[in-house]
Amino acid sequence: MIELSLIGIGTGNPQHMTLQAIGALNAQDLILIPNKGSGKDDLAGLRREICNRVIEGNGPRIVEFSLPVRDEAIKSYRKRVDDWHDAIAEIWWQNLSAGLPEGGKAGFLVWGDPSLYDSTMRIAERLQKLADIKLTVIPGITSIQALTAAHAIPVNEIGAPFTITTGRQLRENGWPDSAETLVIMLDGECSFQSIAPEGVEIFWTAYAGMENQISVSGPLAEVSSQIMETRAKARAEHGWIMDIYLLRRG
Amino acid sequence: MIELSLIGIGTGNPQHMTLQAIGALNAQDLILIPNKGSGKDDLAGLRREICNRVIEGNGPRIVEFSLPVRDEAIKSYRKRVDDWHDAIAEIWWQNLSAGLPEGGKAGFLVWGDPSLYDSTMRIAERLQKLADIKLTVIPGITSIQALTAAHAIPVNEIGAPFTITTGRQLRENGWPDSAETLVIMLDGECSFQSIAPEGVEIFWTAYAGMENQISVSGPLAEVSSQIMETRAKARAEHGWIMDIYLLRRG
Ligand SMILES: C[S@@+](CC[C@H](N)C(=O)[O-])C[C@H]1O[C@@H](n2cnc3c(N)ncnc32)[C@H](O)[C@@H]1O
Ligand SMILES: C[S@@+](CC[C@H](N)C(=O)[O-])C[C@H]1O[C@@H](n2cnc3c(N)ncnc32)[C@H](O)[C@@H]1O
Repeated sequence: MIELSLIGIGTGNPQHMTLQAIGALNAQDLILIPNKGSGKDDLAGLRREICNRVIEGNGPRIVEFSLPVRDEAIKSYRKRVDDWHDAIAEIWWQNLSAGLPEGGKAGFLVWGDPSLYDSTMRIAERLQKLADIKLTVIPGITSIQALTAAHAIPVNEIGAPFTITTGRQLRENGWPDSAETLVIMLDGECSFQSIAPEGVEIFWTAYAGMENQISVSGPLAEVSSQIMETRAKARAEHGWIMDIYLLRRG
Repeated sequence: MIELSLIGIGTGNPQHMTLQAIGALNAQDLILIPNKGSGKDDLAGLRREICNRVIEGNGPRIVEFSLPVRDEAIKSYRKRVDDWHDAIAEIWWQNLSAGLPEGGKAGFLVWGDPSLYDSTMRIAERLQKLADIKLTVIPGITSIQALTAAHAIPVNEIGAPFTITTGRQLRENGWPDSAETLVIMLDGECSFQSIAPEGVEIFWTAYAGMENQISVSGPLAEVSSQIMETRAKARAEHGWIMDIYLLRRG
């Protein structure tokens, strides 16, 4: 039997690692590191750095592998992603069965927290159909918390609900009725442009928790274009960007 | 000037501490620990234990203080809480100004993450009105993540929104339109009883991340009474309980 641990590593700051995550990394027989190759975000580099920093003595074996690319010929978005996840699960399984023929403990480092807008858990579920695999999840600091820490703000108003959603949802469905506070993730298009800015405050952060963290906040009507310019410039400079923001209406 | 750090410590598991939080604790001149006295949850005990475990050498001075009680004679809930927060800010200020007459670094350990349904940041904002205080927030593992890790489930469906809310909101306003996934916190009354259970799955955890963690999941219609019994029994046994759950409708 293989015990697979999905280990949350936080949002790019090696200091986000928890003692539990460090313990889990050291307890593995094998650690899988996917190598996107192209991505300028150098996530494989960060994963390697974290392993180097926190693994003591004769740690687990580290196995790197290349990720398949999505088949853009498939028309349906859902089918394209599904097939891609199947292909990734297949590659994980090749590496796990080759690396741990007698079974054992394998770990995978997940950006932020494994539960939040991340496909790793869905790939692990596919693996569980291919073989007898016990799944363990180690929580990690999320980009939501890195955002609210950067601005030193509460995420909720007292006793009030808040909704986490994506840039696409905001563009396509507008501000949901249920909450006066939204957190927007996975937004490549500054989707805050699509809502009426009156009475809305925005708290925006790129590279949250990282050395090059940038934050802008204020009334949406006033800072909207500043955020777009800052974002475009930072993205050009670094070659990649990850950003997240909170919207609050009064 | 005083630099005040609100340090997220996770949800009761000392292994939830991040390297950043450990570094921050060690860097303080003074650590404030409130002593609720009555509370069976022994949060002061956990805070002391964490300090003992992670502070190295001649660490910061630790100052314990008693919290004021809420004035139940005040009719309005909002006014009662406001006055109470004012009183707490006053006591913090007495301890900070006495302990750091020349200024310096003071830390406060916050359960979970300081941004999530916690009054500490609102008290810190009051303090900033009393004196020149620089506020720093160190993120911590939240009970939402401890919940999803316990069940090894994603919090969101692919690309879909989710709403975090309280037991009271669920009872008073029902299931919000915006999301098919809800996370319910601050619920002393098993408020899942107030919604139609058909087609709803629940993932419930008490003492998430802690040694005595208990989890129950399944169709709400089937496991609802099991959760209520388990909760009542655990509460009676330990003298206190903290629980959280995710609801998903299909
Ligand atoms: C695929 S999701 C992964 C989220 C991750 N599991 C977490 O817990 O934060 C990627 C999105 O998370 C957000 N994100 C992740 N890391 C970030 C960072 N360091 N700064 C800003 N946003 C970040 C961005 O909105 C990005 O589009
Ligand atoms: C005042 S709020 C504080 C939340 C905290 N700041 C966090 O980040 O999780 C307390 C609520 O959090 C949830 N909670 C906190 N710790 C928990 C734990 N270990 N297990 C289950 N629920 C927990 C419960 O819903 C509880 O009513």
